[in-house]
Order: sequence, then structure tokens, then C-alpha cells
Amino acid sequence: MRTAFHAQLDSLTEMLSNMCGLAGLAMDRATQALLYADLAMAERVITDHDQVASLQTQAEEAAFALLALQAPVAGDLRRVFGSFQNVADAERMGALALHVAKIARRRHPHRALPDEVIDYFAEMGLIAVDLGNNARDVVTSRDPEQAARISEKDDAMDELHKRLFGVVMDEEWTHGVAAAVDITLLGRFYERFADHAVEIGRRIVFEATGAAPEA
Amino acid sequence: MRTAFHAQLDSLTEMLSNMCGLAGLAMDRATQALLYADLAMAERVITDHDQVASLQTQAEEAAFALLALQAPVAGDLRRVFGSFQNVADAERMGALALHVAKIARRRHPHRALPDEVIDYFAEMGLIAVDLGNNARDVVTSRDPEQAARISEKDDAMDELHKRLFGVVMDEEWTHGVAAAVDITLLGRFYERFADHAVEIGRRIVFEATGAAPEA
Repeated sequence: MRTAFHAQLDSLTEMLSNMCGLAGLAMDRATQALLYADLAMAERVITDHDQVASLQTQAEEAAFALLALQAPVAGDLRRVFGSFQNVADAERMGALALHVAKIARRRHPHRALPDEVIDYFAEMGLIAVDLGNNARDVVTSRDPEQAARISEKDDAMDELHKRLFGVVMDEEWTHGVAAAVDITLLGRFYERFADHAVEIGRRIVFEATGAAPEA
Repeated sequence: MRTAFHAQLDSLTEMLSNMCGLAGLAMDRATQALLYADLAMAERVITDHDQVASLQTQAEEAAFALLALQAPVAGDLRRVFGSFQNVADAERMGALALHVAKIARRRHPHRALPDEVIDYFAEMGLIAVDLGNNARDVVTSRDPEQAARISEKDDAMDELHKRLFGVVMDEEWTHGVAAAVDITLLGRFYERFADHAVEIGRRIVFEATGAAPEA
């Protein structure tokens, strides 16, 4: 039986799913802006960030209204709680894409990235977008196996991030300190983006199975 | 009249307040570890982080039980919601102190910081500890004026952070890329620590006055 509670929960889930999708799209565009020193693309990410922030407010209000009006208990209450936490993670994912876009804009018309690290960021961008889309899908499907795979993709991100630091720290690095600072921050933004997607996946697994996947 | 709801809310508030205090203490010790290449102090922060993580779980369960058993409405419900968000911010503050301690440990027996930036980190450490303590106090006092002052201190942190980048990016920087990478990450950790304290302060102001302080 469909209840008012479930209709409201579906609406909250849709907002959350949209937020994850928008965060993934923002990271896709921010990565393009970074790889091609594309100012228009960077500006677009920066302008569009308001959508994610506005969806966050709406989703938090929806979660709040749900609790106030429906007073859910037990599993339903946990689910609203979980959605609320997921909304915070999705907002941070959008904010991290915004930070990437801002670095691309700051360095324009130059590219923030020297040639040696272009491939790293291209790949980290692909993984991030994939993770955003996975988060978007699993908050709706609630499939614990699909959710658990998010952690596996994060391992690939961590590995790339580690190797990236190796390149920057290498004695043969000739691009100076300013580029190293940018790359350090950018690497951190991609890594944190992935971490938030992992958190969303872990919560879906926990809600579905009662056990958290291994960290 | 004291109700079961208020007794439980007080208990939740106390956990949250403890978390903020522990995060401030952790950042104090992590800063000492960083400034003096003090390995024992770094290890202590790393070991003690479990306390913050465990308090987070307890506080989230307490907030959840409060909603499940007391079904608060209107302002009381908003307050539980706000506490729940504050718990997430306090946990991040603790995690950021942990990251600082890990960099101090990684560089031991060397100091991660060249002389030129020691004063910056000493001051950023003081501000961070102050912010942690302010957050600890305002979640209990709920005084909006005290809470609003957190944002002012964050301005000082942002200013220091900006000047720190100026030092690292300067042509006269002679400490190479590895130190610059460490300092970039460390600067970001202190800045984010402050941001989370600001978020807690903003929520207290919002709950007390219905209006968010200017960003």
C-alpha cells in the first residue's frame, strides 16, 4: 500500500538522486574546464552550483516535513535520517566540483595542469563522474551490491591520488611550487568527492543489510 | 517543566559539546606535534580519535532514539535536526585534527614546517582551538551573539590561510615542492576545521533567531 509517508519519501529520494546526478555532472564539466582550460565551462559549473545548494535546502525541508507530519518509526525513521545524511554528502560533492572549477578559472587562460598529470586528472574525473552517477542510481535502487561497488571504484581513485603525489614529489618535477600547490588541492578535491560517494554507498548497504561494508 | 524529551536533549547536547571540546583538544595537540615534531603527541591524537568517532555513533543513536521515542515537533524537532548536523561537523573537526597529526608523524623526526611558516601555523592552531572551544560552549549556552563571533574568528583564519599561500608561492621559497605540498594540505585542514565550527555557530544563530548570519 502506498502511503503519504512513502510518497513523501519518494519525493525526498528523487531530490537526493538529482543532487547526486548534478554533482556528477558538475564534476564532469569541472574536469573538462581543467583539462582544456575552458573558461566558459568553469563559469557554468560555478553558476549552476546554486541548483545543488537550492536542492539541498529543499531536501532538508522535505526531510524535516516528513518527520514532523508523518512521525515515522523504526526502519522508516532510519531511512529519513540516512537520506538527510546523504543530502549533506551530495552537497559536498557539488561544492568540491565547484572548487575544481574555480581553480580552472583562476589559471585561465593557462591550464592549471602540466602535461605529466593530465592523464591522472582525466582518469580521476571519469571515476568521479562514475561515482556521482552510481550514487544517483543507488539512492533510488537501494541495491546493496551496486552500492558496495562504489567502494571498489574509490580504491582506484585512492591509487591514482597516491601515484599523482609521487609525480609531484619526484625530483624530476620541473613545474615549480605554484603548480604543485594547485595539483595538491585538486587531488584532494577529487579524493574527497569520491569519499562522499562512498559514504552514500555505505549508508545504502547498511540500511539494506544492517551491516556496514568493510572500510 | 523538565520532560523526558528535555533530559534526552540535554544528554545529546552534552555529547555534542564533548565532541567539539575533544576536537579542539585534538587540534591543539596536533598543532604541538606539528610545531615541535613531537611524535608522541601525534600518536596520541591518532589514538584518541576513536573517542570522537565513538561519541559520534553514540550521539547519532541518541538523536535517533529521541526522535523515535519522543516524536518532537516544531522547534524541538528542528533542534534535534540541528544537533544531528552539528555532530557531523564536530566529527569532521576531529578528523581534520587527525590528518594534521598524521602529517606530523609522517615527517618525523623532521619537522614538516620550514621556519618561515611556523608562526602561521602557531596562530592558525590557536584560532582553531579557540573555535573548537567556542563551538563547545555555544552548543550548550545557545547564545546567538557568542555563536555569531565564531564567524569573525574564521575571517582571521581565512586571512592567515591566504597569506600562507603567498609565502609558499613566493619566488623566494627555497624549501621545494614536498614541503609546499604538506603546507597546502595542512592549510586546507585548518581552514576546513574553522569552516565546520562556523557551520555549528550559524546553526545556533539560526535556531535562536530564525535568521542565518551573513556568510
